[in-house]
Amino acid sequence: MMRMEFLSTLVALVAVLGLPMCIYADEGMWLFNNVPKDYLQKKHGFTPDDAWLDHVQKSSVRFNSGGSGSFVSADGLVMTNHHVGADAIQKLSDEKNNYLRDGFFAKTRDKELKCVDLELNVLMSIEDVTERVSAVVKEGMTPTEAFQARNKVIADIEKESKDKTKLRSNVIPLYQGGQYHLYRFKQYTDVRLVFAPEQQAAFFGGDPDNFEYPRYDLDVTFFRVYENDKPLKADHFLKWSANGSSPGELVLVSGHPGRTSRANTVAELEYLRDTGFPFLLQRLYRWETSLSVFSDRSAENGRRAKDELFGIQNSRKARDGGMAGLLDPKIMQRKISNEQTLRAAVARDPKWKDVGKSWDIIAEAEKKRAKLIRPYTMLEAGAGVNTAYFSIARTLLRHAEEKDKPNGERLAEFRDSNADSLEQTLFSEEPIHNDLEIVKLADGLTFLCNELGYSHELVQKVLAGKSPRERAAELITKTKLKDVAVRKRLYKATSDEIKAENEPFIEVARILDAEARKLRKTFETDVEEVKRQAHSQIAKARYAIEGSSVYPDATFTLRLAFGVVKGYEQDGKEVAPYTEFAGMYERSKEHNNKEPFDLPARWVEKKAALDLKTPFNFLCTADIIGGNSGSPVINKKAEVVGLIFDGNIQSLVLDFTYSDEIARAVSVDSRGIVEAMRKIYGADELADELTGKK
Amino acid sequence: MMRMEFLSTLVALVAVLGLPMCIYADEGMWLFNNVPKDYLQKKHGFTPDDAWLDHVQKSSVRFNSGGSGSFVSADGLVMTNHHVGADAIQKLSDEKNNYLRDGFFAKTRDKELKCVDLELNVLMSIEDVTERVSAVVKEGMTPTEAFQARNKVIADIEKESKDKTKLRSNVIPLYQGGQYHLYRFKQYTDVRLVFAPEQQAAFFGGDPDNFEYPRYDLDVTFFRVYENDKPLKADHFLKWSANGSSPGELVLVSGHPGRTSRANTVAELEYLRDTGFPFLLQRLYRWETSLSVFSDRSAENGRRAKDELFGIQNSRKARDGGMAGLLDPKIMQRKISNEQTLRAAVARDPKWKDVGKSWDIIAEAEKKRAKLIRPYTMLEAGAGVNTAYFSIARTLLRHAEEKDKPNGERLAEFRDSNADSLEQTLFSEEPIHNDLEIVKLADGLTFLCNELGYSHELVQKVLAGKSPRERAAELITKTKLKDVAVRKRLYKATSDEIKAENEPFIEVARILDAEARKLRKTFETDVEEVKRQAHSQIAKARYAIEGSSVYPDATFTLRLAFGVVKGYEQDGKEVAPYTEFAGMYERSKEHNNKEPFDLPARWVEKKAALDLKTPFNFLCTADIIGGNSGSPVINKKAEVVGLIFDGNIQSLVLDFTYSDEIARAVSVDSRGIVEAMRKIYGADELADELTGKK
Repeated sequence: MMRMEFLSTLVALVAVLGLPMCIYADEGMWLFNNVPKDYLQKKHGFTPDDAWLDHVQKSSVRFNSGGSGSFVSADGLVMTNHHVGADAIQKLSDEKNNYLRDGFFAKTRDKELKCVDLELNVLMSIEDVTERVSAVVKEGMTPTEAFQARNKVIADIEKESKDKTKLRSNVIPLYQGGQYHLYRFKQYTDVRLVFAPEQQAAFFGGDPDNFEYPRYDLDVTFFRVYENDKPLKADHFLKWSANGSSPGELVLVSGHPGRTSRANTVAELEYLRDTGFPFLLQRLYRWETSLSVFSDRSAENGRRAKDELFGIQNSRKARDGGMAGLLDPKIMQRKISNEQTLRAAVARDPKWKDVGKSWDIIAEAEKKRAKLIRPYTMLEAGAGVNTAYFSIARTLLRHAEEKDKPNGERLAEFRDSNADSLEQTLFSEEPIHNDLEIVKLADGLTFLCNELGYSHELVQKVLAGKSPRERAAELITKTKLKDVAVRKRLYKATSDEIKAENEPFIEVARILDAEARKLRKTFETDVEEVKRQAHSQIAKARYAIEGSSVYPDATFTLRLAFGVVKGYEQDGKEVAPYTEFAGMYERSKEHNNKEPFDLPARWVEKKAALDLKTPFNFLCTADIIGGNSGSPVINKKAEVVGLIFDGNIQSLVLDFTYSDEIARAVSVDSRGIVEAMRKIYGADELADELTGKK
Repeated sequence: MMRMEFLSTLVALVAVLGLPMCIYADEGMWLFNNVPKDYLQKKHGFTPDDAWLDHVQKSSVRFNSGGSGSFVSADGLVMTNHHVGADAIQKLSDEKNNYLRDGFFAKTRDKELKCVDLELNVLMSIEDVTERVSAVVKEGMTPTEAFQARNKVIADIEKESKDKTKLRSNVIPLYQGGQYHLYRFKQYTDVRLVFAPEQQAAFFGGDPDNFEYPRYDLDVTFFRVYENDKPLKADHFLKWSANGSSPGELVLVSGHPGRTSRANTVAELEYLRDTGFPFLLQRLYRWETSLSVFSDRSAENGRRAKDELFGIQNSRKARDGGMAGLLDPKIMQRKISNEQTLRAAVARDPKWKDVGKSWDIIAEAEKKRAKLIRPYTMLEAGAGVNTAYFSIARTLLRHAEEKDKPNGERLAEFRDSNADSLEQTLFSEEPIHNDLEIVKLADGLTFLCNELGYSHELVQKVLAGKSPRERAAELITKTKLKDVAVRKRLYKATSDEIKAENEPFIEVARILDAEARKLRKTFETDVEEVKRQAHSQIAKARYAIEGSSVYPDATFTLRLAFGVVKGYEQDGKEVAPYTEFAGMYERSKEHNNKEPFDLPARWVEKKAALDLKTPFNFLCTADIIGGNSGSPVINKKAEVVGLIFDGNIQSLVLDFTYSDEIARAVSVDSRGIVEAMRKIYGADELADELTGKK
């Protein structure tokens, strides 16, 4: 599914750069301040005006946990995918009230459940700060100096903005070096659960049907935003379409695509093909296996691991698809010719004399990346100490060290502008299950032995004379970090006080930290910064050569995509764009109602009440990627006709290149949502609120 | 489970050497011509005489597909595990008659089903040929010369014996260089299925409970051997015990442990820990994932992949356990001190002057192995072209080349003595499912790209300008090797005729074969042969120093092990040695009867008829390993009291070292077998035959 992957550090390694590119058909993840109005008018006879764009922008919501959403009522109701909300639903669940498994509906507002650690952001304004940021990087600076200078000015801009507006302020690098935009977000942290179907209805067909089509998923959840303990009076929200969509109709998607790699040079794609993806998949295969083994031992184990396992399977499937794309000579050949064309154009113009070598600089940086990736992943990204406790411990250790530094010189996550999110994660009351953590940590330590080598000094220090299994059990039995009060106390402590604490995971973090920081620094300066500058050169030349009617790679910030409702052809067979409820019952029957094709009890009981011909899921050609999960699909009138939740397996190459031949976005149909709500869940109050009948 | 793993080539790389070692408690996989009678008498008051040993030996059966068994009636009835017979049962099954899932019972002999490609061997005699083999290796020969000379004499001995006795004849290297024994086997190829329970009864608890205890598995299957279309009149068979076993009782196990690595030097264990196991697990994790993904898409997919998936999960779990053992400093420290003690003793005696460097020679060879293992696994072991068709194609290609060479110079699998088995595998009528083969091959080709590098000349030639998925589909659509008649025709063809055939998989095999053969040759001479000679030196010294009361590492030939019926302690809790039928019903209920804890329908219907207190599975301390699956567990009177089918998770270190603290063999109780047969399956005829009531 199109969820933003939570392997965030690894994903960051895979693709962080944003460059402009030429558009093809309904291609594009467009900035709200640079929408291709001419193209839309010409191709689809529609020009969104500024009021339309402002309305849609402020109706759109980012789930910081990794997804998109939208306001859909005047009373702060927010719609997103079940799989985007699953983490929050899981945190509200326990062995007695398993809302993730059984679903939830608050018939009245006082029954709505306040979520733990759920932060929603709404983009309020965009300001171009390119000039101020670019000005600090002077000719002749080393990469480290340039990196630090830019970090400092970004931190300054963010802090000034936050102080002035009280809004969350982030400087977003776009078109790498091409532009830097200051995004200001309103933050909402009182978010309550209103409605969730059974996970089995949301994710019917499970991992086997994930990224496949036809689909039959009610992948929807509703939250409500509160302010001062009252439902938010939303200035902007999307109305519900009375009639849904129809085949061939233009639909638009407002959401937060996470990351794409479309501006990657051939050398970068080769790195991903030969090193990045194979290693990431190696990690995912073993992680998936160890979580599956744990899950299968008992029903309670399964509940505890479900959400994490589900995320890993989703990432694995997405990367498998990406790997297939990178090994497809047709795709790679297109990339090669595009690059050759641009390089030839650059070579012809003496003005771009210095730009030509940028491709070689990037290729060199990729060689360094290939050497760094394994130790970096093990130590800095924490794969070798795979437990929630280690992340907490290292955050505490580093926070004590970073907080006394000037804001601009800190590691990015410790800048003032990120303090709220950092604290929310660190002080999360989310239950940590020690049995599951022992399994993950034992596997992580084994992986660490395999990758760094058993005799490596740091490995020996971390293992402390024990086997990975024994050491994992020991560390997790002894840690005090399960207690949020301990974390809060240590968050205020000095480095010396933390040292005196003898907290086992902080000791482990300390053992690894010098090397981890060194790897990160090398990575940020010798790979990322070097590439950033080279990409910036390429970007400038490309602007000049190819024109400005372009969009940057995805950055998990708000974008507008569009396309038409359309099926596709597979193995000579037409795949229709819409599915209906009836198809879900048929697919379940084919599998003898066996997991993960089993119908929730309510769906069996209420079948007769349901109009089985109601559209359930549908396809469109809009250009989406992970992070777009939960994005509203709207018509020209900005009315909701659907809800993005997945792409088909052919869409997994969209990471590198757009195609509307067979790649499709998959959505829940607005008509299916309301029909199920009324007939299956007896949630007429909510359906009335959505459709404006109340 | 204790099945011989079918990753045979890889396993061969992991541990092929056999050395003597000192015994500890009831340790030992003893040769039938060197049973520790004194120890048995002293510790257990029992001396098996020669008649007893001859009787047990000739009642024991080897399943060449990878397991053990025994004759249990005068009419050629053979007992083994369901998981040993599963492959044969699968081959008899189709979508209509799913005997693997639903079980099978032939009430009368005419209903017994003839198996495809199932060969059973019975060990008829053992002859020491050490002198003749050792004599051909002369001082000053290079490793290649020594290897070839020894291969030649072994081929000669095998051929002479076969010509003379018509028995399958194999020279088995034991105590590496210490001894070579000629084993003569009677071969049986008309084997018919008599009884199998539902796989769900045989493998209740599935992968989650595999290698765990308590267990509740009816992991048993009965075949009958025919000769001249009539049931075999067996001269030797094991009688059924009237009363089963009791706690603390001495039990003996006659079976075919596959391979152990107990004589490995520390350098070899370090190789396994740092390179061999991590890479093998990497391969297993991805293989398991791709088979699981395929299986989960439909019930029919699941049926097609079930047996293979089950084997991979079993191997993965066993290797995970082995990896944990290798990373346990207690185990490694014991190995290090034992080696230091022996090396010190060797150093003290001038007679062993040259032996000391053997450990260093082995360590050097292990460095070469570490460099070879990845390309070797990809090309020679076929992991990069993971489909049944490739194995068939390469066998045909190589057979055409090898058959004209002198017998002693051929690759081992093409020697005359192996012709029967080779042909049986090659001409197997086992269904090959193209959809499954495409999935495996696409993943294999992707793995090949990852490991050898996408730009590698051989990779490019194999892919032929296509992506792995496209190429896999193309090759499998075009191949003619599904047709056994084509294989038979090509088996008789010359190299030139085969070339003219344009068979796509043979072309792929030809592309890779020069490099694959080169890797194999380097591996066999620079690693295996060098180590063989060094181990032989160490073995001689160890004999002299530690005495001759020792057993060699496992070689998938007949061994006698023994121990007592006994529970163990885990996390301070006593685990009882016996389980009962009642426990199976309880465990199923705990899991709401969900897969893989679901009871077969018969077990639900017939519950009331069953004596729930009947012993079902039990533990003993006998020294077993993969390949022992299906071994009879007998008492002093050579009566069957049980059937080995697994070890607990703590027994997975037995590969490297014996322990009777918490490592246990797991068996089906003979009383449970008969009770289920009569009460659940209405198989009184068979129960009568077993218990001699007929």
